[in-house]
Formats: sequence, C-alpha cells, structure tokens
Amino acid sequence: MTEQTLGDMPTEDFRRYGYAVVDQLAEYFEDIEQLPVLSQIEPGSLAASLPASAPEQGEDFADVLNDVDRLILPAVTNWNHPNFHGLFSTSTSSVGVFGEMFAAAFDMKAMLWRTSPASTELEDVTLDWLRQMMGLPDFFEGIIYDTASVSTMHAIAAARERANLGIREKGMSGRDDLPLLRVYCSEHVHSSIDKAVITLGMGTRSLRKIECNERFEMIPERLAEAIEEDIEAGYQPICVIPTIGTTSTTSVDPVDLVADICEKYGLWLHVDAAYAGSAAIVPELQHLFKGWERADSIVTNPHKWLFTPFDLSVLYCRDLNELKAAFSLVPEYLKTSDAAAVKNGMDYGIQLGRRFRALKLWFVIRYFGRKGMIARIREHCRLAQLFASWVKSSDNFELMAPVPFALVCFRANPPGVSDLDALNERILNAINASGKAYLSHTKLNGAFTLRLSVGSIRVEERHIEKVWKLLNDRLVEATDSEIK
Amino acid sequence: MTEQTLGDMPTEDFRRYGYAVVDQLAEYFEDIEQLPVLSQIEPGSLAASLPASAPEQGEDFADVLNDVDRLILPAVTNWNHPNFHGLFSTSTSSVGVFGEMFAAAFDMKAMLWRTSPASTELEDVTLDWLRQMMGLPDFFEGIIYDTASVSTMHAIAAARERANLGIREKGMSGRDDLPLLRVYCSEHVHSSIDKAVITLGMGTRSLRKIECNERFEMIPERLAEAIEEDIEAGYQPICVIPTIGTTSTTSVDPVDLVADICEKYGLWLHVDAAYAGSAAIVPELQHLFKGWERADSIVTNPHKWLFTPFDLSVLYCRDLNELKAAFSLVPEYLKTSDAAAVKNGMDYGIQLGRRFRALKLWFVIRYFGRKGMIARIREHCRLAQLFASWVKSSDNFELMAPVPFALVCFRANPPGVSDLDALNERILNAINASGKAYLSHTKLNGAFTLRLSVGSIRVEERHIEKVWKLLNDRLVEATDSEIK
Repeated sequence: MTEQTLGDMPTEDFRRYGYAVVDQLAEYFEDIEQLPVLSQIEPGSLAASLPASAPEQGEDFADVLNDVDRLILPAVTNWNHPNFHGLFSTSTSSVGVFGEMFAAAFDMKAMLWRTSPASTELEDVTLDWLRQMMGLPDFFEGIIYDTASVSTMHAIAAARERANLGIREKGMSGRDDLPLLRVYCSEHVHSSIDKAVITLGMGTRSLRKIECNERFEMIPERLAEAIEEDIEAGYQPICVIPTIGTTSTTSVDPVDLVADICEKYGLWLHVDAAYAGSAAIVPELQHLFKGWERADSIVTNPHKWLFTPFDLSVLYCRDLNELKAAFSLVPEYLKTSDAAAVKNGMDYGIQLGRRFRALKLWFVIRYFGRKGMIARIREHCRLAQLFASWVKSSDNFELMAPVPFALVCFRANPPGVSDLDALNERILNAINASGKAYLSHTKLNGAFTLRLSVGSIRVEERHIEKVWKLLNDRLVEATDSEIK
Repeated sequence: MTEQTLGDMPTEDFRRYGYAVVDQLAEYFEDIEQLPVLSQIEPGSLAASLPASAPEQGEDFADVLNDVDRLILPAVTNWNHPNFHGLFSTSTSSVGVFGEMFAAAFDMKAMLWRTSPASTELEDVTLDWLRQMMGLPDFFEGIIYDTASVSTMHAIAAARERANLGIREKGMSGRDDLPLLRVYCSEHVHSSIDKAVITLGMGTRSLRKIECNERFEMIPERLAEAIEEDIEAGYQPICVIPTIGTTSTTSVDPVDLVADICEKYGLWLHVDAAYAGSAAIVPELQHLFKGWERADSIVTNPHKWLFTPFDLSVLYCRDLNELKAAFSLVPEYLKTSDAAAVKNGMDYGIQLGRRFRALKLWFVIRYFGRKGMIARIREHCRLAQLFASWVKSSDNFELMAPVPFALVCFRANPPGVSDLDALNERILNAINASGKAYLSHTKLNGAFTLRLSVGSIRVEERHIEKVWKLLNDRLVEATDSEIK
C-alpha cells in the first residue's frame, strides 16, 4: 500500500489509526481484569505464528492492529492487572502513555541542550519538584537514566573516579600500583550492583556483602569491621550502598549510621531507593528515609512506584560535577559555543542520545498532584498492612519479614506439613498458572518465601481479598494432595 | 480534580484526551515545516516559565495539553523537520508512535520470558527479519538495547570476558598479573567507544586509534603494525572495532581486511554500523558491508535510519552465549523453572528491566515493507549525491570527503578568502540561528567542515535545494562582511 510513495504515513491515516489505537488501549484498560495476569501461551508459540521473513510490500496498518489483538495480546503478561503482585508491581498510569506519544513523535535526542531544550529544562524542573516532594535538600541535582542498574553503575563509576587513582585515563589493567577496590552493601542488595561491579571491571570480589540483622537490615558494626579489615589488608574502600527498600523484603538499611561510617572513612555513600524512594513523598513514611540526605548519590525509579511508565530512573547527586568528571568527553561534531552556559545531558553518562523522559513524569505529577500521589501510595501501604494482618491472625500462614512499605513476605505453615518449601512452591505455581493472580518468591534464611507486592494503580481491597482466598483454597488443595 | 479518588484516569477521559493528543500530533506533523528547526528559546526560559514546585492538587489534563503547545513546543528542536540535517537526521516515522503507545500501556519489563513473552519472542522474530534483510548469515542472533553506546560497551565487555583473565570475578584492581588490554579502532571512531573503555575500567589508554587514509578509512597495515608492537610490549590486544559509516564522514573501514587481522591474532571483531547498518538492506549498497559477516558482533541502530523512534539499538552476535557468560546472574527472586527452555533478556546485559521495543520495529517493518524501506533509504542517498554534485560543480564550495551513504561533508572555499574556518563557522551559525535548517560540523585534517545529513522521512528534493540556496546566500553575506 505504501511502497510506491515516499514519505511518512499521511496525516489523515495517522489520525484514523491513532484514534483506533486509543480505542484499543481504552478497551484494554477497561477489560484488564478479564485477562490472565501471566500470559498463558506456550514458549515459542508467538514466534511460530509469525511469518519467517519481513513482508516485501507494506501492509495495511489495520491488519497490524488486528494482529496486536489476535497475536500480541495473548502473549502479554499483564503488569497492569491489579492482581499482578510479583516482583515489584508496576504503578504506571495512562497519562504516562500520552507522555510517551509526544516523546516518540518529537524524537529528540537530549544529548545537547540545543538538540533538545525542552527535554533538558523539563528534566531539571520535574526532578526539582520531585526532590522537594521527597524532602531532599536543594543541593541535590538529578539526572534521568533508563534503569536503576544504569544509575547505580554511574554512581559507582563516580566513586571510582573520586578515588583519584587515574582509572579514567590509565585504566586498571597493566598496573601493579592499584589496591583492590571495595564496595559494600548488604547481603540483600539488588543483583544490579553485582552487575555494575562486573561491568566496571572491578569484579565480583570487589563487592563485599555485609551481614544483616533478623529484620534483613545491614548491621552497621559489621560494616565498620569489614572496612577496617580491608584497610588493614591494603584494600581501598570506595563506596557503600545501603538500600531503602530491598528487593526481597523492602527492608531498610540504617542509612544514618552508615553515613557516619562513610564520613569517617571518606567513602561515597550511594543510597539505593529504586523502589521505595517514591514513598518518601508520604509524610508518615519520611522517617524511613532518615540519613539519606547525607548521601553522595541516591537512585529512585518513578517507573516503579510513581505512576510513570517504564523507563525512568533518577540519580540524584550532591555534586553532579563528579559524574561529569567521570564521563564528560566532547568530540568535535558535538562541540557547541554554549557548552559553558547550558547543561548538556550527554556529559553525565555513557549514553549520548537520551529520550525525552521528563515529559511523562511531568504529566503524571500534574495530573495527580502531590496529594493524589500521596493518597495512592498510602492506600497501597494500607492494603499491604491489611493483608499482613490477615496473615498474622491465620493459623496456616506466617509473616516472614516486617512490612515497612507495600510488600508482604509470608508463607503457608499449616500444622503437620513437613516440607514447607515444597508446599509454598506448589501453592505459588498453582496460583500463577491459573492466571488469576501473580506472586513471586524469594528465599529468606533459606526458607522459600512468598512475596505479595501491592502497587498497581488499579488495586483495590477486593483484589487483596481475592488473593487471600486463592491462597487459602490452594493451601487446602496442596495439603490434601500432600496427605494423599 | 482527581485528588479525592484513587485509581487511574477514567477510560472515558483516556479516550477523549487520547484523541486530543492524536490530533495535536497530526497537526504537529502537518505544520512541521512552519516551525523553526532549532528551538529559538533562550537557555533557561522554559524552566523560568514553570512553577517552582509541583501542584498540590491534580490539574485538568486539558491544561497540561495546552501547556505542551504553549510552553513545550517552542522549546522543541524539531528533529522531524525535513531540514534537520545535523548530526545524523532522525528517520522516525509516525507508525513508530503507535508502537510506543502500546509499549507504554502494557508496561511490561522484558527481564524474563514469563514477565513478557510478547516482547521476548517478537524481539527474536523482528531481529531475524532485519538480519535477513541486511544479508547477514543465520548464525547471527540479536538483542535489543537502548543505544549504540550501550550495545558497544556490551560487545567490548564480552571481548574482555573471552580473554579469559578472570576479570568478571577477580576484577582488574589489586592484581599485578594483568597485561595492559588493548582495543583498536580508527581515529574517526565514535566517542561512545572512548566512554565504553572508561566505563569498563580499561581507561582511555587501552584504546589505540589507528591512522586513516585520505578517505578517512582505517589503514589495515597500520592496524597490524600496532598489534605487533603491542604484543611485543607485552600488552594484550582483545578487540578491533572497524566502523561502517563513521560519524564524521560516514567513511567505511576495510572490514574484510580487518577481519583477516582479527582472525590471525584471535581478536574479537566488533563492527560499528550504528548509522549505516540500515543501508545494508539496499542491494546496491551491500558491497559497502563486505566482511561484516565475519564479525563477532555488529551494532546497528534502527532508531537512526530505519524509521523507528529512539531508542532501539541492536547488537547482533555470532554467539549470544558469550554475552551471557559476561553478564548472566540470577538472584533468587528471579529464578524460574523454565530458565533452560526460554530466553530471558536480562541474561544479556546490565539492564534488568527492558522496554517492549520490538513492537515499534515490527510496526515499521510491516507498514513500509522491505521495498518501502529500501525506496526511502535509496532516495536519501540520491538526494545526498545530488547535493554533492552541486558542491562539486560550484566554484565556491568543495567536497571534503567521499559520500558513500547520505551524508555530505563540504565547505565553502570562495576565491580570495583567507580564513576558511571562520567563514564556514559563520555560515553555519547564521543558517542554524535562522531556524530554516540545521547543519552540524566536524573537523577533517584540521579544517572546519560542514555536514549535511539527509535522513528525514519527510525530506524531498526541494528541501535540499533550499539548503543549497541558504548556503549560497549566506556565503555572499559572509564574504561581503569579510571584505568590509
């Protein structure tokens, strides 16, 4: 249909198909509870249903939209389903979709201010709004990356640069003058930090994992001992990464005490608040963030719990120039006369082109307002506490960790069952396979533990009740089969 | 308006505002030639026009959409304008916008197959379609990242891992048994490769830049000499990165000869075809890619010249398991029983969450078809050659580099002007400041050189004619003022 002509889709078609996509998405949002949470397709079945090669001639776009409904949708795991309780639920909102529409249409690359003034300045403004809402001091300045993995890797790279060992220029290979570098985090840290030290060439042995207490929080005395030991051994500590809201349990490391230690030894303090940072906007939760204002850098992901579509991760830095020192590098074809006067996003990281991500965050903040966002996060926490209260008062289930935010770690422990790990895994698999809800798991002190994350913008009390009923029903079935 | 209620925007509002956004974008595309190419705002003026803090209460979304027109649009540099000829033009098409709408609405994170079967399988299918169109052998398997900077960093990390020096685990600090690692590329390589070696902890001195010939192509004899010299000195060569379509001039390194050298010394061959890779689908341009089928990895960016909105970069690997060996790491909360049977995207890189980027590429390929894409890239090349022919036959301008693809490097050299650099910079600034077109520059053998990139999906012959007229008019003005 389009092969003879050049140019883009005619705008009358763009309008027509654009309306159709909006309708299709509106129906998707309306009907989402009728869809299974986890996709029910067999591995390979989508690929098998598609042609082996690209079409020679352009196709009618209506056919493509039909195929989205017919082929793609059944292969979608519905993160937007209110009963998606696995990993961390997505909180994304539909206004965020509008942000992505404009961003894709403008298709600016925010490498230089001049190539994207709107993106550069809106990023500064929205990140400053967010900083204020989260109660961080005004010397924190932010930069947007795609994911927390990338944000944190940049923070560790800046810490490495601050160590002043000439690594940016001389590197670490072919040298015998470099001590072993060390980064510290708790044993409950996110795997992205392991990947960051691998990527940065520091190796997994540069990451020292500190023991936690029974609440899964880093023990600051153990941290201090480890640092002393390492210094004794001739190693060079560079960075400590406490987490506010760990992935397994959302436990909160004692950031204030860790900050004391970082101060004493002159170490970079990077706070991983990728999940929980959004909750800092809720006044009664602010106390969980005590000490983070002393950080050198903080990562938080509005794409997790601030109603913003993936991807949008924010790295706040006490001094953004330290990132610039680690990464800035301007080839001739990107030199501009205004470089001293403006902020050029490319100076702060590995990516040269950067999407106009601030727009969707701006849409979200304006549409919900500070109070609207607080109300939603507060409700998620209330529902998690409610669910935890049911677990606590049940004879067949037990809580496995404290619930500071909106994630509940628990397991079935009915009297008379010997292999609780196998039982819980069976319950989990049965619920997930049913498509009625999706939960994930972790291991805590070796015990197979179920995780219920409450974070969908659509989640209501009835959804939590539904999960509770599913769990109890599956428990009966699973123990019945155990007894047989 | 929304602060009392919870949940998402009501779907009737989503429909209404969604239509409004579609209309706004249709008008944007229709009127784009009336807009200045480079944003005309003063630095800081957008930020100054926005409130200092987030709104307390949610706002009417109609007001937000008004502000997009009133405040954001004037701060947009219009990459979609057919006279955006700077850097590399974007080729993005409006069907890509539809892809981003679905991706944002589904908000799947393609970390595991099960969390996003649609994204995982469609990625395999579309990348296989693209591989076939580009004429690569079927053992190449691809993975999607955000940018070429990130793709290339992963390729070098895989090369580092293949060197089998225990870097993933032991790292490079605190060791005296590691030789200096070396990566080779031409002096015209993209700055992302410098950033990659910095990030990977190898340092800028690990990057050895090889001399080019007068066509800005890497001289293979110089490469072989450099490797010999380095081995002699006890260094360890790990990787060579020839470019097909360098950023400054789109020159083409002799990949086939470089491949011979890589084979001889057992080095990883990574081909940077971030810009030009898309042109491999055009039969008469295939010869420019000779030898790339011998690569270990190839990066190409459909977001540059394959009509796909930013960001979507593809890394093709001869053996994806080498990437997996460098990066795979599965924490308990991400363990699944199907890990051996399915492809989990998180295993191939630093990012855990991955956007559903394959969808927009699938939309683009189906809407235009192979022939439609070929026709458009062919037309871009024709227009670039046409412009180059005007330059060649002019007494006041000269070509500065060959034109293998759709970028023309040239400068004004009217008789009787002594400082050609100053003259060309003046012409460039005058055109860019006018908002009528945007060109960028580079330096070639020390000479300030203008770059005209032809790549917009909207570009027609009249747009190229307009630039030629602008250049000649500005030349007269600039030389007049020089003479005065």
